[in-house]
Amino acid sequence: MEGTGHFGSAADGDVGLLSPVSASPLVTALTGDRAVLAAILAVESGWAAVLEKAGLAPAGSAAVVASAAEAGRYDAADIALRAQGGGNPVIPLLADLRKHVTALDAGRVGALKAVHTTLTSQDVLDTALMLLARNTVEAVLADLKCTTAALATLAEQHADTLGVGRSLTQHSLPFTFGLRAAQWFQGLAAAGRQLGTVQFPVQFGGAAGTLAAGTVLTAGSSTNPFGLADSLARQLGLAAAPAPWHTNRLAVTALGNSLASVLDAAGKIATDVLFLSRPEVAELAEPRAAGRGVSSAMPQKQNPVLSVLIRGAALQAPQLVAQLHLAAANFNDERPDAAWHTEWPALRQLLRLALGAAGHLRELVEGLHVYPDAMRRNLDLAGPLLLAEGVGAAVAPLLTEQDGRSGKEQLQSVVDRTLQTPTAEQGTTYRRLLREAVPAGVLTDLRLAELLEPASYLGQAAEISRRILAAYSDFSTPTQNGANRG
Amino acid sequence: MEGTGHFGSAADGDVGLLSPVSASPLVTALTGDRAVLAAILAVESGWAAVLEKAGLAPAGSAAVVASAAEAGRYDAADIALRAQGGGNPVIPLLADLRKHVTALDAGRVGALKAVHTTLTSQDVLDTALMLLARNTVEAVLADLKCTTAALATLAEQHADTLGVGRSLTQHSLPFTFGLRAAQWFQGLAAAGRQLGTVQFPVQFGGAAGTLAAGTVLTAGSSTNPFGLADSLARQLGLAAAPAPWHTNRLAVTALGNSLASVLDAAGKIATDVLFLSRPEVAELAEPRAAGRGVSSAMPQKQNPVLSVLIRGAALQAPQLVAQLHLAAANFNDERPDAAWHTEWPALRQLLRLALGAAGHLRELVEGLHVYPDAMRRNLDLAGPLLLAEGVGAAVAPLLTEQDGRSGKEQLQSVVDRTLQTPTAEQGTTYRRLLREAVPAGVLTDLRLAELLEPASYLGQAAEISRRILAAYSDFSTPTQNGANRG
Amino acid sequence: MEGTGHFGSAADGDVGLLSPVSASPLVTALTGDRAVLAAILAVESGWAAVLEKAGLAPAGSAAVVASAAEAGRYDAADIALRAQGGGNPVIPLLADLRKHVTALDAGRVGALKAVHTTLTSQDVLDTALMLLARNTVEAVLADLKCTTAALATLAEQHADTLGVGRSLTQHSLPFTFGLRAAQWFQGLAAAGRQLGTVQFPVQFGGAAGTLAAGTVLTAGSSTNPFGLADSLARQLGLAAAPAPWHTNRLAVTALGNSLASVLDAAGKIATDVLFLSRPEVAELAEPRAAGRGVSSAMPQKQNPVLSVLIRGAALQAPQLVAQLHLAAANFNDERPDAAWHTEWPALRQLLRLALGAAGHLRELVEGLHVYPDAMRRNLDLAGPLLLAEGVGAAVAPLLTEQDGRSGKEQLQSVVDRTLQTPTAEQGTTYRRLLREAVPAGVLTDLRLAELLEPASYLGQAAEISRRILAAYSDFSTPTQNGANRG
Amino acid sequence: MEGTGHFGSAADGDVGLLSPVSASPLVTALTGDRAVLAAILAVESGWAAVLEKAGLAPAGSAAVVASAAEAGRYDAADIALRAQGGGNPVIPLLADLRKHVTALDAGRVGALKAVHTTLTSQDVLDTALMLLARNTVEAVLADLKCTTAALATLAEQHADTLGVGRSLTQHSLPFTFGLRAAQWFQGLAAAGRQLGTVQFPVQFGGAAGTLAAGTVLTAGSSTNPFGLADSLARQLGLAAAPAPWHTNRLAVTALGNSLASVLDAAGKIATDVLFLSRPEVAELAEPRAAGRGVSSAMPQKQNPVLSVLIRGAALQAPQLVAQLHLAAANFNDERPDAAWHTEWPALRQLLRLALGAAGHLRELVEGLHVYPDAMRRNLDLAGPLLLAEGVGAAVAPLLTEQDGRSGKEQLQSVVDRTLQTPTAEQGTTYRRLLREAVPAGVLTDLRLAELLEPASYLGQAAEISRRILAAYSDFSTPTQNGANRG
Repeated sequence: MEGTGHFGSAADGDVGLLSPVSASPLVTALTGDRAVLAAILAVESGWAAVLEKAGLAPAGSAAVVASAAEAGRYDAADIALRAQGGGNPVIPLLADLRKHVTALDAGRVGALKAVHTTLTSQDVLDTALMLLARNTVEAVLADLKCTTAALATLAEQHADTLGVGRSLTQHSLPFTFGLRAAQWFQGLAAAGRQLGTVQFPVQFGGAAGTLAAGTVLTAGSSTNPFGLADSLARQLGLAAAPAPWHTNRLAVTALGNSLASVLDAAGKIATDVLFLSRPEVAELAEPRAAGRGVSSAMPQKQNPVLSVLIRGAALQAPQLVAQLHLAAANFNDERPDAAWHTEWPALRQLLRLALGAAGHLRELVEGLHVYPDAMRRNLDLAGPLLLAEGVGAAVAPLLTEQDGRSGKEQLQSVVDRTLQTPTAEQGTTYRRLLREAVPAGVLTDLRLAELLEPASYLGQAAEISRRILAAYSDFSTPTQNGANRG
Repeated sequence: MEGTGHFGSAADGDVGLLSPVSASPLVTALTGDRAVLAAILAVESGWAAVLEKAGLAPAGSAAVVASAAEAGRYDAADIALRAQGGGNPVIPLLADLRKHVTALDAGRVGALKAVHTTLTSQDVLDTALMLLARNTVEAVLADLKCTTAALATLAEQHADTLGVGRSLTQHSLPFTFGLRAAQWFQGLAAAGRQLGTVQFPVQFGGAAGTLAAGTVLTAGSSTNPFGLADSLARQLGLAAAPAPWHTNRLAVTALGNSLASVLDAAGKIATDVLFLSRPEVAELAEPRAAGRGVSSAMPQKQNPVLSVLIRGAALQAPQLVAQLHLAAANFNDERPDAAWHTEWPALRQLLRLALGAAGHLRELVEGLHVYPDAMRRNLDLAGPLLLAEGVGAAVAPLLTEQDGRSGKEQLQSVVDRTLQTPTAEQGTTYRRLLREAVPAGVLTDLRLAELLEPASYLGQAAEISRRILAAYSDFSTPTQNGANRG
Repeated sequence: MEGTGHFGSAADGDVGLLSPVSASPLVTALTGDRAVLAAILAVESGWAAVLEKAGLAPAGSAAVVASAAEAGRYDAADIALRAQGGGNPVIPLLADLRKHVTALDAGRVGALKAVHTTLTSQDVLDTALMLLARNTVEAVLADLKCTTAALATLAEQHADTLGVGRSLTQHSLPFTFGLRAAQWFQGLAAAGRQLGTVQFPVQFGGAAGTLAAGTVLTAGSSTNPFGLADSLARQLGLAAAPAPWHTNRLAVTALGNSLASVLDAAGKIATDVLFLSRPEVAELAEPRAAGRGVSSAMPQKQNPVLSVLIRGAALQAPQLVAQLHLAAANFNDERPDAAWHTEWPALRQLLRLALGAAGHLRELVEGLHVYPDAMRRNLDLAGPLLLAEGVGAAVAPLLTEQDGRSGKEQLQSVVDRTLQTPTAEQGTTYRRLLREAVPAGVLTDLRLAELLEPASYLGQAAEISRRILAAYSDFSTPTQNGANRG
Repeated sequence: MEGTGHFGSAADGDVGLLSPVSASPLVTALTGDRAVLAAILAVESGWAAVLEKAGLAPAGSAAVVASAAEAGRYDAADIALRAQGGGNPVIPLLADLRKHVTALDAGRVGALKAVHTTLTSQDVLDTALMLLARNTVEAVLADLKCTTAALATLAEQHADTLGVGRSLTQHSLPFTFGLRAAQWFQGLAAAGRQLGTVQFPVQFGGAAGTLAAGTVLTAGSSTNPFGLADSLARQLGLAAAPAPWHTNRLAVTALGNSLASVLDAAGKIATDVLFLSRPEVAELAEPRAAGRGVSSAMPQKQNPVLSVLIRGAALQAPQLVAQLHLAAANFNDERPDAAWHTEWPALRQLLRLALGAAGHLRELVEGLHVYPDAMRRNLDLAGPLLLAEGVGAAVAPLLTEQDGRSGKEQLQSVVDRTLQTPTAEQGTTYRRLLREAVPAGVLTDLRLAELLEPASYLGQAAEISRRILAAYSDFSTPTQNGANRG
């Protein structure tokens, strides 16, 4: 019997084999373990700069720390292993950083004094993850705006492209592809706008959240711990915080919720595309690319892989948001006994799925194939019955009561009788029964034909699209470069 | 064998037997099935008023509909059963409403024309749930502001109440109960502020989201469907929407997320109180009330029931937020094939848990017993070792290198040797070893004693509290009446 | 402005207005709050019988308690309100039970001594919920077996009904509806079998799980607390437990997981039916019933409401399972500080969704309309390209290498070139190119035609169905009466 | 402003920096991306062996494929990137495997014919993940049995170690540490037993689940596709399956649920240890190890890191189980449009957390420090009031009614009056009031003292432990070697 041995090697890292949606160089660069390492080092290095500027660390120490903090010097796998000791990666990384600083402090300026002084692990890791999140969110938004711009174009181009609206899987009323694109746009733009308002605050509270060590350090200086925190925020391009937020995780849950909202909107689009590109429907098709959509068994298959990957990401986000809220609700004491640790992978995974999905969605939307003929064909499947609501609204008031039945009831009876005939005959039957039920003196043949023309029953489709694009005009033109193609 | 028969009767409704946290008259009144029924009826009635004002329904019809829409006329259980037919409660309720309108239209004004005209079920139910949510959120916020006001008072009263900070379950540094209360305040106020900004938009899209029927109805009138929607929003006190949002559920997920954030903050407080009121800790106690906290077996027990109920609610919220995001990500077509249906119970349950927990939290905080002596006793458990961080910061720079060991390393050695002695002796040992390690010429006995005094190492505890209260000054004074006592 | 008042009345209970899937008399009877109340009372009453039989309560007391425990005597809403005091409904219910026992103990046998003696709330509530679960699971299984029997019949009837298999939304290979029904059967039967093995253990540990009071009570008697627990299990038809399981919740999580697995299988079927009954596909249709599937706006619509309700239930189950595991992982101390309380509504809701969905699924499957013509039409959409895998397997070995290209590569080229022509022409093109690529000497026209006939490439479809039905033969014939129609 | 650049490098893989609980060589070796790669290759290689043995692939081809399938030949990162094309890693890996086979087929036996013939991606990936899961579960169980053995020892050693039981955070009754250890044992052993029964079935259905290509291949041979599947199962040490299960995911959800159940039990223990090792409680302490439990700021801290990591893992498992059920409920068509893709990371993460936590839990339990003195001290905190239940049971029947109050009510009054005195005096007060309330003629001083002795009110603590150990005797002795130390 084979297959019972251990398979992998401990030295290897995960490269996304089981999560194709986010297996891209950009996603790895922005959210991978080395990005985490680099973000932690950026915080420590930024802090050294803050201390030196405030005269609280020796002149020259920030430069030494910056050099020592080059990510290439560190062995992430080794740090990860040693992170089990204290439960977080900052502690072993710090030990290495201090060694490098000592070694690099050739001029003996005492650069060690600038390392981590008065900080605690949570200060560093919370701030580092905010840094990493900020970078990733910027990239998500860049892709998103390319996507919404492409959707805005589709909405305008297809303002008159007739199709059918669907409700609980069944045909409801005439619709336009332009309005569908506009609603996709609205979902994505609204979520993008929410994501764009998320704050990324710096964390600085010290060991217990009292800034005790920082108070000792700044005593007699011209600054205080709050001033240091504000400097660090500026240094890193993060938001200042009025106070330490070590036990209040709204910054994290709000970020997670906004990322999930973007994935919700992306998932809704992907789910629609998956249906609309089915062979039986064929209203849309994904852009083709060499090697994409292939099957390992069926040579003729063209799978809508972009949509599959996006929808998969969207189906994972809800659990991750739940994980973040659960952490927040369990954040006991001044630093909790596990909740904090459960935040890290959930937040990172949300960033990863959002960025991966945003890139695929952009490619999907920018290259989407649209087939108006198929849309029309599907619209015609239902025949004029689809107009029954409009017919009722226009005609019922014209009918007089008969045998105690109102005009509305008479028209419902026409529909009911039509539905008892085979589908293929329902169009003819409905027209005939309707004509019989409504005296020509009350409704001319011409007006009846008009009522049974789908294009005449689009309501405000075009105006709704226009209003949506206007409401999110900041999302209807692309930024210079989307992240995933930059 | 007993116990095999069916137990209940189909006629009975749930009264909260398995969810004590929200089994209160106020919660039932604002979120129960009858409140849902009433909200649906309020939307239909409001719509009739809108139509009549716009001249699109006969004069006098709104009054007839309003009378027919009195909730007392309806059998909720029967409507729930019949809701299985169409999958939502609006459809059977409408049938009943139309009967009542017909019966009550004594003057034969034709009031039936004002009922549901051009609306679809989703318009009514989405709008009704927004109405119900708005009412509930107002009540949550009213309770919340009483709670935050009480916390602000605790923060000020206990600004100097010494205790110990805890991190990963262990003692970290001296702390104050005032700062703990201020951080609880910050969590709740920030979540409350977020909840306070949530929008409750009206929904109006018609059968497919094109406003087709509304366009027919308003053709030739002085208004249009958007105007009707805005009127309905004003009529019901909801927010206007730039466009139908039937397939984009950000309004629902944002609301759900904000309710969960309030429950996160409440859960954090309850979790802390549960620990701090344990017999071994005894720093806090819940307010007592007749019959509260009793056990069915142990006559002497006083269970912290308020905190248990609040924490239970907070542990349920994450899954409900996930449910809402999952619905949003699955909202296919122009009306989805199940996602919409999964939103209703999740959103309602979040409202219910938030309101129930908010009431209990208010009672908990307003009546919280605080025991400064116990806080001090627990602080002293760790003895002066707790000050090691501060000692290190102050003393290490004063020490000269010895045998290649830096001042910091010398002090760590003092700590390590101390930790090898029995806990009860660690205080004395630490003082002695420290005195031996640091020459009196470098550090006087007086200064050493000062360094080992907890009150001297509180950092910015008072100032952080002050900044927090200032940052959320709108939450530091109570509103007139909290909901649960109003 | 209207709509700002409170809507509901505190006296009313929920009747399922927002959860149509489970708004049925049977579901209410088995899982409603009155069923909970009755189950609690059944446990207390059963316990009195156990005590009396063991000679540990006065003769005659069990009869008094049984009479006092009639559910009709109790005001569930009042008990729910008072449950806030102790955090669970057993405590206030006990107070009422004791009053009734005292009042009914006309013969002054001292029946009060048989009430709750040596039990604790958790003993009663855990046991009561197991009782309620057992009753509900029996009803779920009864419906399930009717459904699987109907599916087995469909699998046999449609063993030769040709259709197309679908993978990642695209057509993969010829398939049969019989095999699809057999796989639905397998999913449901396997989940049903798992559910059928779930144990419903009695709980008895006393106040702290040591059986201390029970030990005192039985001292000197011929039994012991373990004997009493076993008697209670027999009395109620539950499983005996080797020891109290108050802090180990595997019985609850295993039950929850099994219910969710049934809902998974039901959800998979409903999701397939929703797609297959779309107008563009039209291979299946839900059974019709008066008033079902109607829309509030569109008179012609026939919504697949049964599938919508079932799928909605299936999409809610995962979060509820998560809630149960979360409770289990948080079950601290000898009775936890909130985790237990979060179990109750989650477990009950799972029971409710499973039973509601099981009834709807049975109705759906038993009355499912099957349209073989549409299946064939959709199969033919893809034309003979669908057979490319089989063609490759049969023909590639027959081809000689040409210009360095293997037979397999030559055939892939035929597919690629075919895919470049319009869909409507792909059938003809593929046949032509294939004929050109494969010399007639190697493959006759007859054999080629055979290879391009879908029915010739069904593999083991029939045999797989047969094996599945055989593997779960206990699920292929219906029980006497399904629960929802019994 | 610094910190705005991209941080990581695309070439790097994740090494567990944000998930310390599973950052171990063993976990990586068994579950990392290279282990996934190796498992996929093991399936393809095993299949070649099956085909050759059945005479369906050229003699000698299995050896060539086995050589080509050495994991070291493959670039996992490159395969992960290319996996985006088809949405799964099997497709690009196959391309590489075929290249290697061609290159290594020096003897030109035609080994390519043995590669993936008649399989589809899902066959390979489902089977590979079952293989990976089986290996990981074996390692989890090995660790688990060491842990349960250690718990069994603790249960026996501390059968008489008195402490206090806790319920809703408050002291309930006297308890023993032995019983607590026995209940921990029961939770873990029951979950382990469930995990031990999980089946790992082979998957083989071909492109659409009909075994069509396999039928063509085996036509005329002495075997059939079911025979091949059974051979593959034997080859890989997996379970045979009666039929393809490509759309029925019970094998996956049952596995996930069982892993979560192990994590539930582990989380319960860790949560208890976290509380019991708090400074105010001090009944337990984690084993110390060099570098473990350190803080980056506080030199004196000893964090219970093992418990923190285990509890963190347990808090993540519920969401992952939910993800698996969600996938199962959404598994539409013959292969779904995203659900399958969401299974992979969730299942792998559950395996990872379970294995990581199992190793830490073993270390925690095997080295746990137990402090009976502290247990006794905490028990005495409550004083004799803790015995009130037992006193009531023993004494109430001895009292005569006074002023209409039963004996039970008289004793409750003693408790109530005691509770109104300061905590420190409650012991004395209770003894005094009790003595006053109970005539000496009814209860001697000696018997009263006995009733107030905690050790006399332990009920069946020892017997419950014994029954638990007996019920899971297969878990009370360790296997030869635990995985994480093997």
